[in-house]
Amino acid sequence: MTTGPGRPRLTSQRRPGQTTPEEILDAAGELFTTKGFAATSTRRIAEMVGIRQASLYHHFPNKEEILAALLEETVSPALAAAERLTGADAPATVRLHALATYDVTQLTATRWNLGALYLLPELLTDRFEPFRTQRTLLRGHYRQLADRALTEITGESGSTSPALADLPFRIVESAIATRADIERGLLPGPENEGAAGLLADACLRALGWTDPLDEIRAKSRALLAETEGGTPLHL
Amino acid sequence: MTTGPGRPRLTSQRRPGQTTPEEILDAAGELFTTKGFAATSTRRIAEMVGIRQASLYHHFPNKEEILAALLEETVSPALAAAERLTGADAPATVRLHALATYDVTQLTATRWNLGALYLLPELLTDRFEPFRTQRTLLRGHYRQLADRALTEITGESGSTSPALADLPFRIVESAIATRADIERGLLPGPENEGAAGLLADACLRALGWTDPLDEIRAKSRALLAETEGGTPLHL
Repeated sequence: MTTGPGRPRLTSQRRPGQTTPEEILDAAGELFTTKGFAATSTRRIAEMVGIRQASLYHHFPNKEEILAALLEETVSPALAAAERLTGADAPATVRLHALATYDVTQLTATRWNLGALYLLPELLTDRFEPFRTQRTLLRGHYRQLADRALTEITGESGSTSPALADLPFRIVESAIATRADIERGLLPGPENEGAAGLLADACLRALGWTDPLDEIRAKSRALLAETEGGTPLHL
Repeated sequence: MTTGPGRPRLTSQRRPGQTTPEEILDAAGELFTTKGFAATSTRRIAEMVGIRQASLYHHFPNKEEILAALLEETVSPALAAAERLTGADAPATVRLHALATYDVTQLTATRWNLGALYLLPELLTDRFEPFRTQRTLLRGHYRQLADRALTEITGESGSTSPALADLPFRIVESAIATRADIERGLLPGPENEGAAGLLADACLRALGWTDPLDEIRAKSRALLAETEGGTPLHL
């Protein structure tokens, strides 16, 4: 992916983005989430950006490459955050709460609800193997933190049910369906304010945390401020 | 929708189902979930059933009608169960646990993972208004039970956060994404055994239930046996 266009643009900039590839990704994000992946052509994407189809192919050889780039954007920030939090000096309950807060905020604040594309049958092909691997790695971080949090909560280590340890990841990804419902007018949007904190709390509650959460919430905020420069509300 | 075919079948029966419409729904369920809705033609559905395209149109005027019928099947059994449970003489915590168990079992045990179609942009059209209404009604039942369960848990009534009361519905629907991950080989299938009970437990934990769950689980099972003739494992 380069930013140097082969030809001058047909028109002035129409889409948000610093570079032509970013504008292409933004237009594709809108079309894939509102019209569908199968129903969107590279021609239509190029039209929305205001470039020739040949210029689009200069940056992305086909529609699958655009989708792959968009999907990787939904996972890689949370994966990087998980890697930083894994090494942080804090209880696993606090680190899990921080990761869930970061991830829900990020899934909710991006311009298009790209997570809604996760269930597309088209994602089964080899081209999306890197995305699947990244998402599996992220899920692994959640599980490891959940296992450790369970040990902290129950005082017993070992033999956690894998389905139980998978609950936080599932609860975090439920933010995708909720966002879709809000965007379709099926839920009032203001309801979702503070959802990141609520879902992060639910991750710990689902694992069996029964004490008040105020202290964990404060430590989770502090940990995010330290490792991420705050929650990623600027995304 | 009638079962009387306009012409004799081309071949012997190829799909599960007692009637031609059921066979059409089964073939469409497979194609929509594995190839995609946009990528599936009524011609291909008819081929898989072994009938002429004209016979398919005798039962369903277009592809949207087939999808609408499939989607309604994903919600209507849980909605009927919710209506029966609303009138049942049991604490809201027990009724919520029973509804979640029933619903996850049903979402998990159907032949095709049709919930994976919920996020399709095609669902925004008027044709799917009845499905959207049914799903909103089901969500309303979850919220009402969650509100009452919260009152039982905290001893305080009124002013529940709507996002908190929505958590059980979100947790139950997370079964759809998990099933998709298992079917794609991203999660081991045996992990999901007992998921209905685990997710039902998580619904109560997320609302702040901190006591052991054994008694609620036993009462939830008894309530389902009484109102539903047992959990719907036969689906």
